Amino acid sequence: MVQILHFLNNELRRLTIKELAHELQQPTGILWIDLEDPQEAEEETILVSLLDLHPLAIEDCQRGREEEGHLPKVEDFADYLFVIFNPIERVAFNGGDPGERTAAIRTSQLSGFLSRTLLVTHHYKPLAAVASALQLCGKNPKTLGRGPDFLFHLIIDQIVDGYTPILDGLDADIDRMEDQVFEQPSQHTMFGILQLKKDIMTVRRIASYQREMLNRLARGEFAPLITKDETLYYRNVYDHLVRMTDLADSYRDVVTGLLDAYLSVTSNNLNKVMKVLTIISTIFLPLSVITGFFGMNFRYLPLAEWEEGVLITSLLMLCVAVGMLWFFRQKKWM
Amino acid sequence: MVQILHFLNNELRRLTIKELAHELQQPTGILWIDLEDPQEAEEETILVSLLDLHPLAIEDCQRGREEEGHLPKVEDFADYLFVIFNPIERVAFNGGDPGERTAAIRTSQLSGFLSRTLLVTHHYKPLAAVASALQLCGKNPKTLGRGPDFLFHLIIDQIVDGYTPILDGLDADIDRMEDQVFEQPSQHTMFGILQLKKDIMTVRRIASYQREMLNRLARGEFAPLITKDETLYYRNVYDHLVRMTDLADSYRDVVTGLLDAYLSVTSNNLNKVMKVLTIISTIFLPLSVITGFFGMNFRYLPLAEWEEGVLITSLLMLCVAVGMLWFFRQKKWM
Amino acid sequence: MVQILHFLNNELRRLTIKELAHELQQPTGILWIDLEDPQEAEEETILVSLLDLHPLAIEDCQRGREEEGHLPKVEDFADYLFVIFNPIERVAFNGGDPGERTAAIRTSQLSGFLSRTLLVTHHYKPLAAVASALQLCGKNPKTLGRGPDFLFHLIIDQIVDGYTPILDGLDADIDRMEDQVFEQPSQHTMFGILQLKKDIMTVRRIASYQREMLNRLARGEFAPLITKDETLYYRNVYDHLVRMTDLADSYRDVVTGLLDAYLSVTSNNLNKVMKVLTIISTIFLPLSVITGFFGMNFRYLPLAEWEEGVLITSLLMLCVAVGMLWFFRQKKWM
Amino acid sequence: MVQILHFLNNELRRLTIKELAHELQQPTGILWIDLEDPQEAEEETILVSLLDLHPLAIEDCQRGREEEGHLPKVEDFADYLFVIFNPIERVAFNGGDPGERTAAIRTSQLSGFLSRTLLVTHHYKPLAAVASALQLCGKNPKTLGRGPDFLFHLIIDQIVDGYTPILDGLDADIDRMEDQVFEQPSQHTMFGILQLKKDIMTVRRIASYQREMLNRLARGEFAPLITKDETLYYRNVYDHLVRMTDLADSYRDVVTGLLDAYLSVTSNNLNKVMKVLTIISTIFLPLSVITGFFGMNFRYLPLAEWEEGVLITSLLMLCVAVGMLWFFRQKKWM
Amino acid sequence: MVQILHFLNNELRRLTIKELAHELQQPTGILWIDLEDPQEAEEETILVSLLDLHPLAIEDCQRGREEEGHLPKVEDFADYLFVIFNPIERVAFNGGDPGERTAAIRTSQLSGFLSRTLLVTHHYKPLAAVASALQLCGKNPKTLGRGPDFLFHLIIDQIVDGYTPILDGLDADIDRMEDQVFEQPSQHTMFGILQLKKDIMTVRRIASYQREMLNRLARGEFAPLITKDETLYYRNVYDHLVRMTDLADSYRDVVTGLLDAYLSVTSNNLNKVMKVLTIISTIFLPLSVITGFFGMNFRYLPLAEWEEGVLITSLLMLCVAVGMLWFFRQKKWM
Repeated sequence: MVQILHFLNNELRRLTIKELAHELQQPTGILWIDLEDPQEAEEETILVSLLDLHPLAIEDCQRGREEEGHLPKVEDFADYLFVIFNPIERVAFNGGDPGERTAAIRTSQLSGFLSRTLLVTHHYKPLAAVASALQLCGKNPKTLGRGPDFLFHLIIDQIVDGYTPILDGLDADIDRMEDQVFEQPSQHTMFGILQLKKDIMTVRRIASYQREMLNRLARGEFAPLITKDETLYYRNVYDHLVRMTDLADSYRDVVTGLLDAYLSVTSNNLNKVMKVLTIISTIFLPLSVITGFFGMNFRYLPLAEWEEGVLITSLLMLCVAVGMLWFFRQKKWM
Repeated sequence: MVQILHFLNNELRRLTIKELAHELQQPTGILWIDLEDPQEAEEETILVSLLDLHPLAIEDCQRGREEEGHLPKVEDFADYLFVIFNPIERVAFNGGDPGERTAAIRTSQLSGFLSRTLLVTHHYKPLAAVASALQLCGKNPKTLGRGPDFLFHLIIDQIVDGYTPILDGLDADIDRMEDQVFEQPSQHTMFGILQLKKDIMTVRRIASYQREMLNRLARGEFAPLITKDETLYYRNVYDHLVRMTDLADSYRDVVTGLLDAYLSVTSNNLNKVMKVLTIISTIFLPLSVITGFFGMNFRYLPLAEWEEGVLITSLLMLCVAVGMLWFFRQKKWM
Repeated sequence: MVQILHFLNNELRRLTIKELAHELQQPTGILWIDLEDPQEAEEETILVSLLDLHPLAIEDCQRGREEEGHLPKVEDFADYLFVIFNPIERVAFNGGDPGERTAAIRTSQLSGFLSRTLLVTHHYKPLAAVASALQLCGKNPKTLGRGPDFLFHLIIDQIVDGYTPILDGLDADIDRMEDQVFEQPSQHTMFGILQLKKDIMTVRRIASYQREMLNRLARGEFAPLITKDETLYYRNVYDHLVRMTDLADSYRDVVTGLLDAYLSVTSNNLNKVMKVLTIISTIFLPLSVITGFFGMNFRYLPLAEWEEGVLITSLLMLCVAVGMLWFFRQKKWM
Repeated sequence: MVQILHFLNNELRRLTIKELAHELQQPTGILWIDLEDPQEAEEETILVSLLDLHPLAIEDCQRGREEEGHLPKVEDFADYLFVIFNPIERVAFNGGDPGERTAAIRTSQLSGFLSRTLLVTHHYKPLAAVASALQLCGKNPKTLGRGPDFLFHLIIDQIVDGYTPILDGLDADIDRMEDQVFEQPSQHTMFGILQLKKDIMTVRRIASYQREMLNRLARGEFAPLITKDETLYYRNVYDHLVRMTDLADSYRDVVTGLLDAYLSVTSNNLNKVMKVLTIISTIFLPLSVITGFFGMNFRYLPLAEWEEGVLITSLLMLCVAVGMLWFFRQKKWM
Repeated sequence: MVQILHFLNNELRRLTIKELAHELQQPTGILWIDLEDPQEAEEETILVSLLDLHPLAIEDCQRGREEEGHLPKVEDFADYLFVIFNPIERVAFNGGDPGERTAAIRTSQLSGFLSRTLLVTHHYKPLAAVASALQLCGKNPKTLGRGPDFLFHLIIDQIVDGYTPILDGLDADIDRMEDQVFEQPSQHTMFGILQLKKDIMTVRRIASYQREMLNRLARGEFAPLITKDETLYYRNVYDHLVRMTDLADSYRDVVTGLLDAYLSVTSNNLNKVMKVLTIISTIFLPLSVITGFFGMNFRYLPLAEWEEGVLITSLLMLCVAVGMLWFFRQKKWM
């Protein structure tokens, strides 16, 4: 779906592709072209024929069809900037094991072309950030009037704001895993922790690539296309991303600690089992020898003819058992 | 609560917001405005209407309401500097397990605006450092006369001094954990160590972010707002923070070693239990076979008819047991 | 095998070495000389006698005979650039253990000399990327007309594209290993994971060396030899390599996690075995003592003369066994 | 104790504080003031009143009273350099466990002020390096004549030379720990290794901070105060420190390896114990069943009435035992 | 032993120390002075009296007597360069344990002074690289004529070439250790792997220090002493060292993996032993209870009077044993 917004003299119009072609012959005002899951013909017409963008940049846009999309980058083509940004989503699974996580991180791709009077946004998946910016422009046309750089900042700011619930979700997952580790650790817990670490590393990587990119956008490196006044807003997005990577870093540390804790809990459980085994063996093996002793077929067996023989033997066995238990309690094994 | 201090001709006056509005029309002397847990209306009046500070900076200030606050940063808005600093507190818990730690690290946020004649400090939690600076100005008005940069240095210097008891507390916790590991390690010990590591990493992160920031403040990057003479004082705070991160680094190493020690102690305990089990089994299983041997229902069983049969068998069993014990002592298993 | 392509006035001719010698006396148009597994005499004639290339560069070319070849590098000899690139292949093994991997990573070497009108490519193994570029030049001579820098970009772009199936193969291997770890981990699994990690590290190293090299080629450092317009294409290859190293990084993290998982699964299995042992011992040792008790040869043994003695004893043994099982189920050991 | 040396016209005089005050009114020649564990009044008089040094620097000096002192640093106060250096000592313990280490690393602080004609050294603990430099000046007054920068180099060179025996001591400790790990590892070994690692990290940290500082002193950054000719000597000290950190790095690697070795030796011992347990159980449990079999109270028990019954059964038991032993030897478990 | 080569007018002469003294009064041509294990008097005469080299550099030369020598470095003394290089040797041991490694890495020191017309090489151990360069000069005097920088490059190039067999040796050791780990791991294997890792780290460290040094030599930083044309040759040596460090890096990764593998193999072996123990216990403990049951001295014991009693009981025992084995095979424990 292609939406074309044109802002001129405080008025906002929606153009068709034909009107766009006409408008581009003598460009006036500010244009925003949003391509959401465009057909190849639409890409061909708008990006190649009408706007004459660089084939390498268009090729990079189309990498967005692939599962993970292109990594974040910014490229300066003199007349326009080409920027790739990666929104992150949390996709829920259906019907997994109860112990496993039920959501995973998926990245997609938003490509943007920024000239001084034109913004092109290109993405295959619908993005809430773009939808809300479109809505804002509808309500207040002057938003578009502040230029493509401000508009683009609005979109990526919302994308980055969208990372917060995802990080909160990861935090909640960590808490859940922590409980599992200390309450009923199983093989699934281990698997879940590794999965969680993978997701955290994905978020960390995406956020740190984008942080580096935003750093370049914010320090005025692309001065004529991103005006000095707007760099402050980009710096603001940069700050958010610094916070994100910092959080992801600390999450990673916690998850690494969780793995250690899991292994420790497991080996602790082994220890407990071994102690029980040792106690049982240590109590019943001597008793077994005692009963065996009096089960020997000797003609002259001590106590055998006495009436109190069984009683004495039973008391002996009781003493041994109680002595052993006392010994283990001394050693703090029980 | 809003406090406004005005210094002119060696005299210190406390202004109301109305007087501040009047004063700002023709600014003279030096102003310090402290907003402690301000209401939104006060923020609106002072920061927006009267001082006309940048909306992004004000938004960052208000991030201080969130649990952990904004990360430390410094931003140059030409007329003024915007600085965020993170005081750290040690918050005590009530009624935890005896083996667990009873305190945790919490960060808050102090935002500051520094122009040549004006200092605005903004924080939601009461801060000892700010209170003591206010007191100092009351006693000696000339403190304020040395300018906002000196005053702000006073505040952050006290905040950083406040890190020392926290680091000492962490050090004491490490010692306590060390004792636990080598005396009576339990699952709680492991949990406590991981918790401690998390706290150390938090302090380390906060201190190193602020170290980088102080480095920028100290090397004269913001020359007109922080005068050359004052940079020495900022360098002094920087040195403190270098020491803090260095300490936190070495604490982290120690705690990592503690985790290794915990695992080693645990596996050592397993080893001891296994040795006892082995010794018990190894002594009583052969004895059991001996008693079983003489318990067989053969008509012609050796020793069975002898009067000394039991004695000989008992001696044999004793020999086997003693021999085994001697063997284990040889092997240093006992 | 030596192939010499000469492009002049939109026409492509294949030259013999003799014709090349003639052509080089008064160079016109653009030349591409490809040496595939050349004999030493051919190397001598073309690289030394005719083109007079630097002996150190030629020596580096000939390092390609060695198993792993020279590491990627670019060297500026004023008149020409000397570039080494490392194609990667996945070589299949025959008849390994079923649990082991059946393919390994092998690197080879492509050396290139780029002047403004001449491209020399030199390699000992046949390369698909070179073959396809030769074919392209055959179909469309103007490809050669765009200059040696464009042509060389074509070749390395295809080499880098060739990394994708290799990384996909490694990804598939990781999935297979993951299944093995969680289903039937054996010593071979451990060996396979270590082997896989080695391969991932190899790809990562090669890709990151080449990334650094491409970065230098792309930022216009060798301006007259690689024209400004072409740097965009080199930047494109650079982006691919950034993606590769990033993928290899995340693969490495996953494989490291797999090693942890393997160790955890192994120790988990130990735990399960220990629990079974403990349960069996704990149930049958007491039963053994009970039977031993009534096997003692005392004249006055309780129950011994009763008709229901065996029944009562059997019920007692059943109670003990069931009680134990109930206890273990309580402890969640079963 | 305060010592003041004054060098003028090839003559060395020792001054009292009063004479110093007089001399400083019209400074001639070269002065070296050494404050060893000075009283606060002496610090006040000399550093503040007479020399008028910066209060922040004096405060840093006085941090030397604290246990670990200030971290190494160099600060340029235009007229003079302020340098902090950290001597390291090896302090012996009394009466520890035999397995534990009997020495630990302690750092102290040497502060120095260098102007073109004045050297002030300030330390709370007596330092061999300072004492020997004082002695050298006594013997050969011209040493002082070469200027404060040469003199200060002499002192820190000796301090750094003093690190060598400490590193040798750590090396010897490593060897001792290595022997313990492979001969009779105990809990104390683990504790000792962790302690050793801590000491190595301390030396490494101190050395690397000082290396960075020396690097700045050696590259002529403080040109008028440290003359070009003298930088060579500082570079020499820098080289020593590079060697120290390099050694400390390799020690750290070795100690990390020792920890792994300790854990491996421990788990190896567990393995050995388990094997003995398994062998004993595996031999005697079947024998126990055989004796039990012939202990059953059946009327018609095979062999029971035969005279050779016991012999046959004994031979059977021997066969089982020997067969088991042979099986274990096959499996290389013995 | 001191050898002095003098090259003038395409002729090579060997000078005595006396002739050298004469020659140095009016230096003509090119001189190479090689000091192999010189006596102190020779060092004094040549380095101090005749050549007047800096005392700090001479001191660094003499550090070569120490076990490991000085770390690589290059220092610019305006008139000459002072360079330290570290040849590596593989020293074989006699009569170690069969499982242990029989060789270790030893570093020595080559010091060189390069002026425009003079090369001094100084080393305490005989070096193949120096010997071969001396031989080459003997055969072809013009080698010396290309200047001290070319000559010195020849020597260090050969030293670096000498690293290759050492790295190959380490590679072979790794393979041998790998076999040991997977075939018959013992305590010696662990020790051998740690030893191997230490050697790899030594080579890595030496190579990377020298790589940094060569990088400085190669990028024309010492332009008048190392001519532009020769830097290419130094870059060539640099490339070799990059390859070395890269190899050492990957060796280190492999050895780290080997340690993991060793631990995994050890714990795997423990698992196997535990399974055997569990199987044996689980089969024979129930059998023991069965025999005990029929060994009880009750008057009315079921089956006891039957003729087929033993047969039925034996069949029952067989069923239990076979059932257990079938159960374990189901569980894949056998």
